[in-house]
Formats: sequence, structure tokens, C-alpha cells
Amino acid sequence: MKIISLNRVEKHKVHMDGAYKAWKQVPLSKNDGAPVYSYRVFTVEPGGYTPYHSHPYEHMNYIIEGEGALVNEKGEEQPIKAGDFALVMPDEKHQYRNKGNVPFKIICGVPKEFE
Amino acid sequence: MKIISLNRVEKHKVHMDGAYKAWKQVPLSKNDGAPVYSYRVFTVEPGGYTPYHSHPYEHMNYIIEGEGALVNEKGEEQPIKAGDFALVMPDEKHQYRNKGNVPFKIICGVPKEFE
Repeated sequence: MKIISLNRVEKHKVHMDGAYKAWKQVPLSKNDGAPVYSYRVFTVEPGGYTPYHSHPYEHMNYIIEGEGALVNEKGEEQPIKAGDFALVMPDEKHQYRNKGNVPFKIICGVPKEFE
Repeated sequence: MKIISLNRVEKHKVHMDGAYKAWKQVPLSKNDGAPVYSYRVFTVEPGGYTPYHSHPYEHMNYIIEGEGALVNEKGEEQPIKAGDFALVMPDEKHQYRNKGNVPFKIICGVPKEFE
């Protein structure tokens, strides 16, 4: 059993190509003994975004704070905000963009093999 | 790709033995095509709790709102509040209790086979 406040989890800038003003934390992962899944938290500053890309595993997201867009395979922005859940399927092209004036903060769950 | 607001997800009272004033929603699961994991949300009213029990799969939790306790295998209450993450390991005895005056609302991730 582990309890950790998000405020106490190390935060690192995302240096991937196509990421801008985005930060990552990993509150729960295989390093904590998680058997199946890992939870990361991405914080995207106003004007920032995650890479527009795809990969062979899903994202299971919950928006903690802010308002943004989840860009789909056609490049269309779908509005998404605090209190929303999203499922991005494996190999589906996607991007998160902050469309507001405050940080856009999301939980991003992935199979533990990928984090 | 699916986006759904928690407010639009059906909410059902938890009728399990040992649950009191607890409600469940399932925003993302295998019914949505989730390949690995399911996300439920439990809302525990002031004075309420989830069952004190164990099962052969983990919980990966995030506290959306409120303040409560996560009871461990020794029966000890560990404080937990909005913004905290928790990992309950498979077969570890646990219970969530609302210790505040507002709803205690948590994400509870489990392998899709169990929801």
C-alpha cells in the first residue's frame, strides 16, 4: 500500500520532439510494485502541447485541471476539460493542447511496460 | 477515441456487504474497448465507507475530491485527500472511509477482467 501526494512527485520537463511547455510526473509505476498499469501526470502550460503522435498502447486519461483539446487522427480539436475522461486507443494518433489560461493537468495511464 | 464527462456517467449505489453510502460510476472499461484497464469512480458520502476486504487484484487510486482514510491491513486509518494517489496491492486488505463533510470521490483503476 502506498499513498503519495502529487505535489511530492518529482516533475521533469518533457523533451520529446513535438512537446512544448509540457511536464511529466510518475506517481505510480512498476517501481512501486504496480502489477499492470502506470499512472503518469502531464502538466501542459498555457500555449503548450504534447506530441502529435501514435504508439502501440492506449492512454487512459482523466483531466484534473484546466481546459484543452484532444486532437484526433484527422487533426480535429475535440474540447476536453477538468472532470472528463478519455480513452485513446493503441496506434491512434493524438495530441493534447492547453486551450486555457491555467495549467492543463491530466492523468495518463499506460501499461507498465511503457513507463 | 472516447471522451466522456464524469457528470454524464450513470451512477449506481454500491450494494456490496460492508459498503455504506457509496456510489459507483464506470467511465472507461472493456465496454469502451479499453485493452487492459478499467476506470471506476467511487463517491462516498460523509459518514460512508467502502467494504473492508481484499481481492486478488490491485487498486490504483486518485482522490478527486474530499478527505478520507485508507485503512490498511492492520485496521489503521491512513489520511488521504484530494490530489493524492494510492496503490493497494493484490490481496491487501483495505477500506476507504469519508472523514470529511463533503463527498469523497476517487478514481479506482483495476484490470479490465474485474470490472
